[in-house]
Amino acid sequence: MIAIDLIGIGTGNPDHLTAAAVRAMNDADLILLPRKGDAKSDLIDLRRNLCAAVLTAKPNVVEFDLPARDGRDDYLGAVSDWHDAIATAWRDAIEKHLPKGGRLALLVWGDPSLYDSSLRIADQLRVGGMALILRVIPGITSIQALTAAHAIPLNALADPVLITTGRQLRVHGWPDGVGTLVVMLDSGCAFDAIDPVGVHIWWGAYLGMAQEALVAGSLAEAAPRIATLRADLRARHGWIMDIYLMRKETPDGR
Amino acid sequence: MIAIDLIGIGTGNPDHLTAAAVRAMNDADLILLPRKGDAKSDLIDLRRNLCAAVLTAKPNVVEFDLPARDGRDDYLGAVSDWHDAIATAWRDAIEKHLPKGGRLALLVWGDPSLYDSSLRIADQLRVGGMALILRVIPGITSIQALTAAHAIPLNALADPVLITTGRQLRVHGWPDGVGTLVVMLDSGCAFDAIDPVGVHIWWGAYLGMAQEALVAGSLAEAAPRIATLRADLRARHGWIMDIYLMRKETPDGR
Repeated sequence: MIAIDLIGIGTGNPDHLTAAAVRAMNDADLILLPRKGDAKSDLIDLRRNLCAAVLTAKPNVVEFDLPARDGRDDYLGAVSDWHDAIATAWRDAIEKHLPKGGRLALLVWGDPSLYDSSLRIADQLRVGGMALILRVIPGITSIQALTAAHAIPLNALADPVLITTGRQLRVHGWPDGVGTLVVMLDSGCAFDAIDPVGVHIWWGAYLGMAQEALVAGSLAEAAPRIATLRADLRARHGWIMDIYLMRKETPDGR
Repeated sequence: MIAIDLIGIGTGNPDHLTAAAVRAMNDADLILLPRKGDAKSDLIDLRRNLCAAVLTAKPNVVEFDLPARDGRDDYLGAVSDWHDAIATAWRDAIEKHLPKGGRLALLVWGDPSLYDSSLRIADQLRVGGMALILRVIPGITSIQALTAAHAIPLNALADPVLITTGRQLRVHGWPDGVGTLVVMLDSGCAFDAIDPVGVHIWWGAYLGMAQEALVAGSLAEAAPRIATLRADLRARHGWIMDIYLMRKETPDGR
């Protein structure tokens, strides 16, 4: 029997690890660390450093090359093939390193529930016939890291919040009836697609890491600053992960 | 000078505390614990137990009676008055226990960004003329505790998620263009207000606590089970905090 722990590790700040995450990491027989290629080498380093910082037991820590997603137009098809490839990589590692069963841990950026593939990939293993026990250890998401860094509430008082993607924002614009948007997975400044009048933005990149960068202001004023800073940071570090919250002013000033 | 740390403590499972939260609790000069009356005595006990479990330094831990919100129809007005009353209670405690300044910590259920008043109350102190440095320590929210307990993703693949309240759901129904809803602050089964066809629900109460209860299923089938269980649990414990995620089946089965 294989047990798989999907462990939310937060956004790169080791202080954001929970006690449950530290315990689960130490309880593992095998920890798989994905290598994503040179550009994002910071991310594998962060996972290596987390392991070095908190492992007191000695699980087998094994790195593997994460398959790349192809860039074809059929986004959902490309993602589905990509999940298949990752499931195969996990299965190969399990057969090689846990031939008699045991506990596999995967260190998931942020929280395993939020725009992450690990739950779907584990489901693929199950559908493929592997008997497994799945456990999820929640972690601090980049949304919480963003609101904490800016010291702002996620929601306006008693109001809803929409979590969405850059792709959705470009296609659908600002949805009706929602005063607060959180935009994730934006490959570049989708906020340019909306009318900035009355909109405030709080932006963050590399949240929780040494490179953390924050910008806040009215969207009209902050958008060009963010675009410039984002391009500079991406050039300097070779990669970027950013997220932002936008709120519309309401008539009563909430 | 007063420093205020708003520390997200997760949903009652001490294992969900982050290292940053533990450090901030120990760095405080004063920790204020709100007493909410007899019915929710479990909640003050949980905070007391957290303090007992993680404090190695000896900050002054002081309990205070949280003012009650009046139940008048003008919801936003009642909330505003309530925030004023809490701000006054904080100010009184600061003047009494930190007359020369220092670091005050407040232990916030879940995360300080999400349907919590602490950031707004701290703002009131600032508006009232208190010089303060505000810091937010993110914590695991009940949303992450819910998705982890059910081992489900928050979002359907690349799709948006709306976080909303029971009150909003009753008034506005299921919003257009959103496949996943998270409903918080529901005083009682607002899911009864929507058409259950094609909707799946994952419900949880007392998440992360010993009393944790979970129900999942199609909304048509699960709704009466949840209503009965919720009433039973509320009667047994004297209070209840619950949350749920609902997802509409999409034509391609995602």
